[in-house]
Amino acid sequence: MNKTRLEAFSDGIFAVIITIMVLEMKVPHEATLEAFMQLLPVFISYVVSFVVIGIYWVNHHHLFHTVKHVNTKILWANFVVLFPLTLVPFTTGWIGENYNEQLPMTIYCINLLATGIGAGILQKVLMAGLPSDDAIRLIAKRNLKKVVFSSVIYLVSIATSFFYPAFCLVLIAIVAATWFIPDKEIERVLAEEN
Amino acid sequence: MNKTRLEAFSDGIFAVIITIMVLEMKVPHEATLEAFMQLLPVFISYVVSFVVIGIYWVNHHHLFHTVKHVNTKILWANFVVLFPLTLVPFTTGWIGENYNEQLPMTIYCINLLATGIGAGILQKVLMAGLPSDDAIRLIAKRNLKKVVFSSVIYLVSIATSFFYPAFCLVLIAIVAATWFIPDKEIERVLAEEN
Amino acid sequence: MNKTRLEAFSDGIFAVIITIMVLEMKVPHEATLEAFMQLLPVFISYVVSFVVIGIYWVNHHHLFHTVKHVNTKILWANFVVLFPLTLVPFTTGWIGENYNEQLPMTIYCINLLATGIGAGILQKVLMAGLPSDDAIRLIAKRNLKKVVFSSVIYLVSIATSFFYPAFCLVLIAIVAATWFIPDKEIERVLAEEN
Amino acid sequence: MNKTRLEAFSDGIFAVIITIMVLEMKVPHEATLEAFMQLLPVFISYVVSFVVIGIYWVNHHHLFHTVKHVNTKILWANFVVLFPLTLVPFTTGWIGENYNEQLPMTIYCINLLATGIGAGILQKVLMAGLPSDDAIRLIAKRNLKKVVFSSVIYLVSIATSFFYPAFCLVLIAIVAATWFIPDKEIERVLAEEN
Repeated sequence: MNKTRLEAFSDGIFAVIITIMVLEMKVPHEATLEAFMQLLPVFISYVVSFVVIGIYWVNHHHLFHTVKHVNTKILWANFVVLFPLTLVPFTTGWIGENYNEQLPMTIYCINLLATGIGAGILQKVLMAGLPSDDAIRLIAKRNLKKVVFSSVIYLVSIATSFFYPAFCLVLIAIVAATWFIPDKEIERVLAEEN
Repeated sequence: MNKTRLEAFSDGIFAVIITIMVLEMKVPHEATLEAFMQLLPVFISYVVSFVVIGIYWVNHHHLFHTVKHVNTKILWANFVVLFPLTLVPFTTGWIGENYNEQLPMTIYCINLLATGIGAGILQKVLMAGLPSDDAIRLIAKRNLKKVVFSSVIYLVSIATSFFYPAFCLVLIAIVAATWFIPDKEIERVLAEEN
Repeated sequence: MNKTRLEAFSDGIFAVIITIMVLEMKVPHEATLEAFMQLLPVFISYVVSFVVIGIYWVNHHHLFHTVKHVNTKILWANFVVLFPLTLVPFTTGWIGENYNEQLPMTIYCINLLATGIGAGILQKVLMAGLPSDDAIRLIAKRNLKKVVFSSVIYLVSIATSFFYPAFCLVLIAIVAATWFIPDKEIERVLAEEN
Repeated sequence: MNKTRLEAFSDGIFAVIITIMVLEMKVPHEATLEAFMQLLPVFISYVVSFVVIGIYWVNHHHLFHTVKHVNTKILWANFVVLFPLTLVPFTTGWIGENYNEQLPMTIYCINLLATGIGAGILQKVLMAGLPSDDAIRLIAKRNLKKVVFSSVIYLVSIATSFFYPAFCLVLIAIVAATWFIPDKEIERVLAEEN
């Protein structure tokens, strides 16, 4: 059982999620600036979620790069990440229309936290099946550290949402930014393998 | 004629079905708990259908793992499973809004039964082309048994929907749970092949 | 330049078209039989379009099976089929709500005719690049004959739509049925190659 | 780290974008010619955007053909093209309903410009990692020239949108047409490689 289909299926889901999110931005019937400006918070939420999903995709890509074969356990662990991700278009649409309200933002942060926890579980399951090859374990460990860090900030965001909902998006953007700092170690290991 | 495209096409359909289902959860305009709670039955139906589709995907994955080449008959038999699956977002959306009503639940259970029967037909068609290799036949047979069992429970659900519609979701969840009991035999055979 | 990406991209489009069509079946808010029965013509249109798109996919699959390399001309000829296909969910939705009205049915039949012509063009472009291998040419020629036959019936359907709109669906179903008659010659050639 | 997943993921996004755009064409409830004619500008916008996205896909296909391995930088540079592309269904829907209004057309042209700039950035990032192979560099350079030319016309379109919004679609169609002039050099290089 190889990993090609798992990757193809996951890529399909990532691609659909990232694209249908834009359907939550309802096309305004008028051509006025007001109509457009009203969409601004929806647009900002879209950008944030786009980046978050992009990070999970790149992450997923790195993770499965280290895996040779998959078993049924991995197939299901993969769904633990994909399931909360499929809810992101919904929660993003909700904060877009109510970006400074407590409940939608709390739910959105819970959604991201669930995705983070799912990513952690998937990683643990994958690591269990990995050979004790140092290079691969290094990538996996560094990745897991980042996932844990992100999840902690998502937890902080849940608390923050009760006081300053809109500020949560700033926190989430900061988490996202940390993923863009290229990890020299991972790049080096990957470069060596090619 | 190899199976790559059939798998890619099927994966695409699985990925789209599982993701657009969330579009049936209409983003509420208000940020209130009432608005959110009203979505709860829609959410529960979504979770159940997500798991059911996930099972069919894992199942499809295992099934085609055993197949080397596909013919036109297999291409069409594959649609016998995919067609009822494409209706799942619709029927899920309907029970979500009317989770304790007879008609939507009956239709939903008929939809799942049709998918189960489709999966059985696909499996029969695939088995006809398989070499009499014991390992492969074992996987196929164990799978078919589960498909038949699921279909029987779906039949029971159809009957149940006339008396206690909401209880059908419990039955369907039980069927789903049986698929998560890892089949040691299948895992062993698959592990040996790798 | 190999054909993998062209196939993957086309499969993605086929998969999305076939799945989003179901979104045109709006989930009724009531759980009544009347609400459900009103969806019947929408459902029948969905079934017909599903089968038509399924045929084009199987067809596309057979066609590109014969091709080794693609050039930019083929990349674009492929869009000549994909473009009218992307309109099918729209025209299907329209006949679903107005199955016995002239205009929507005429447009639907024009849409199918355009797809048929597109398929003919793609096939011609593909055949130009084929080696004069008898086996491959045989498949291509048999396929082209069927595409021309289907297009003629679609032309007849356009005329019919002005008198008995609903009858067009019967004609289209008959065309579809002819594609299911397995072509022994093609199967034999494909079997020999594997 | 190979490029298969990046291509599969991008193909998925391209396929979904090109297909969901048609969802912005709302199925009319009446079967009248007026209802249909009102959709004409929406349809024309759809055709233009379909062709533009098709060009980016063919372009993406050519670009990555020259690449052997991808790194994290390329993964992210790819998103710089994909992000503005995911907005095209939204901006297309808006000009469709307001094809001769300034604001939607300005936004639409900005969207296309952003996509063009994104494509330029991606190309630059890809070229940095290319071996100094003349054939590959030739393709990349010719492509980049076209991308720059398109972007300049998109810039002109932004200015034009303030005076004759509808005329922008003509400009964009002209840009599109230039991409269809087959580049003998590129075709020759690609043909030699196969």
